[in-house]
Amino acid sequence: MKTPDQQRGVAGLHAHAPVIILVDPQLGDNIGTTARAMLNCGFGQLRLVRPRDGWPNPAAERYASGATCVLDGVQVYDTTEAAIADLHYVVACTARRRDMIKPVLTPEQAAAACHTRTAQDQRCGILFGAERAGLVNEDIVRSDAIVTVPLNPDFASLNLAQAVLLLCYTWVQGLTKHQPGDETLQMGATRPATKQELQTLLDHLETTLDQTGYFRTPELKPTVWASIQNTFQRMQLTEQEARTFHGVIKSLHGQRLREKS
Amino acid sequence: MKTPDQQRGVAGLHAHAPVIILVDPQLGDNIGTTARAMLNCGFGQLRLVRPRDGWPNPAAERYASGATCVLDGVQVYDTTEAAIADLHYVVACTARRRDMIKPVLTPEQAAAACHTRTAQDQRCGILFGAERAGLVNEDIVRSDAIVTVPLNPDFASLNLAQAVLLLCYTWVQGLTKHQPGDETLQMGATRPATKQELQTLLDHLETTLDQTGYFRTPELKPTVWASIQNTFQRMQLTEQEARTFHGVIKSLHGQRLREKS
Repeated sequence: MKTPDQQRGVAGLHAHAPVIILVDPQLGDNIGTTARAMLNCGFGQLRLVRPRDGWPNPAAERYASGATCVLDGVQVYDTTEAAIADLHYVVACTARRRDMIKPVLTPEQAAAACHTRTAQDQRCGILFGAERAGLVNEDIVRSDAIVTVPLNPDFASLNLAQAVLLLCYTWVQGLTKHQPGDETLQMGATRPATKQELQTLLDHLETTLDQTGYFRTPELKPTVWASIQNTFQRMQLTEQEARTFHGVIKSLHGQRLREKS
Repeated sequence: MKTPDQQRGVAGLHAHAPVIILVDPQLGDNIGTTARAMLNCGFGQLRLVRPRDGWPNPAAERYASGATCVLDGVQVYDTTEAAIADLHYVVACTARRRDMIKPVLTPEQAAAACHTRTAQDQRCGILFGAERAGLVNEDIVRSDAIVTVPLNPDFASLNLAQAVLLLCYTWVQGLTKHQPGDETLQMGATRPATKQELQTLLDHLETTLDQTGYFRTPELKPTVWASIQNTFQRMQLTEQEARTFHGVIKSLHGQRLREKS
């Protein structure tokens, strides 16, 4: 039986709110205040990738001010890849400019993008990086878009929970503004690929390119491979198209093997 | 000469951003994180009414993460009345329902109201209460409107700095949306009364009503007097109209004195 405290805020949860993912969070305080800010906005699903001080964390409980239902539901992962595997659309929150060909959205645009996908039964997530350094490039590469909060350019570093709050609050505002159905992609009988299906495809491609010596030197590989991954993220592949690409890779590779023999 | 740290964020300040007023703030931590959230949004003016632990406060400096220019400019007051005396339009941020006849605005509406008044060279402020209890009714009575953030009704209590951030961020968003000039009140040669001018008028009225025995019992006075003050706040008096009302009170009182004699 649940105690009243564990139930606090549950009645106001939005079933389809995006998952909040904190990568390498350092301070339990910030995990707690994040949980509080999430529940303020009716967000219930919090995932942690490699929390520095382990999990559960007493400091998080102290700072959550009763957002127990969020903390109780926290899921912990070893990798960002695993934490987003079941999601269809992921935006990465970052303040720094990145040299990547990837859409950069305002919080309003990110919220609208999530609402559009939720209306299509897709699961969305928002990635936040560590307090000091933010997200690493590999995590941004895994995302569909970057979201940046327009702030004082001279003092733009937001506290982690403050950033979560702004994104969640903007999503809630969008609930009433969004017209479900607009911007709907026509997908026919198929559905968008999950991040896991896309990652399996990328793994297949990477392994094959390694075998074929595509990456001239180990030093060049990270940059080149990141840009290839970004193009795949932008494609918004369907599950069927992902399978098609597997076939394409196999076919091309087999072709080359045959040519060599 | 200023050090670089004291200058951080200054370049991104909005000259006409509303003044943020914290009434009875308890924790220095929260004053610091408030200063940081303000500077994130380009807000520079912070006023404190009766900070529990005095001022300056080392904890505030630790939690401000370099928002030194905001802390350096903090002004401290003994009363809310003094802290808002030079302002023309004040909204009070509160989560609890109040039994008052006073406009209740969303953050978007409050931001729009401030932008409208700023375009008319009026000075605006946003009041926030103590961490535990929020604003007392006397402070809300002094305000033109209540602003409430639409949150999870089952878990609506925001951290102080989080509340400040949402209001400031919404104001910044409104910078680009607001069309200066719409909703402009035609005031002719006069200008809106400041809060001090209004307070002087209310003091005059209250003293006079006390003298004339208007408030039947001391127990009834607070409620009755609050509702009268609220009507005056809603009037949006001009400076000229405030002077007119002084004359009206004097005249009515003198009339009655003459009737009695």
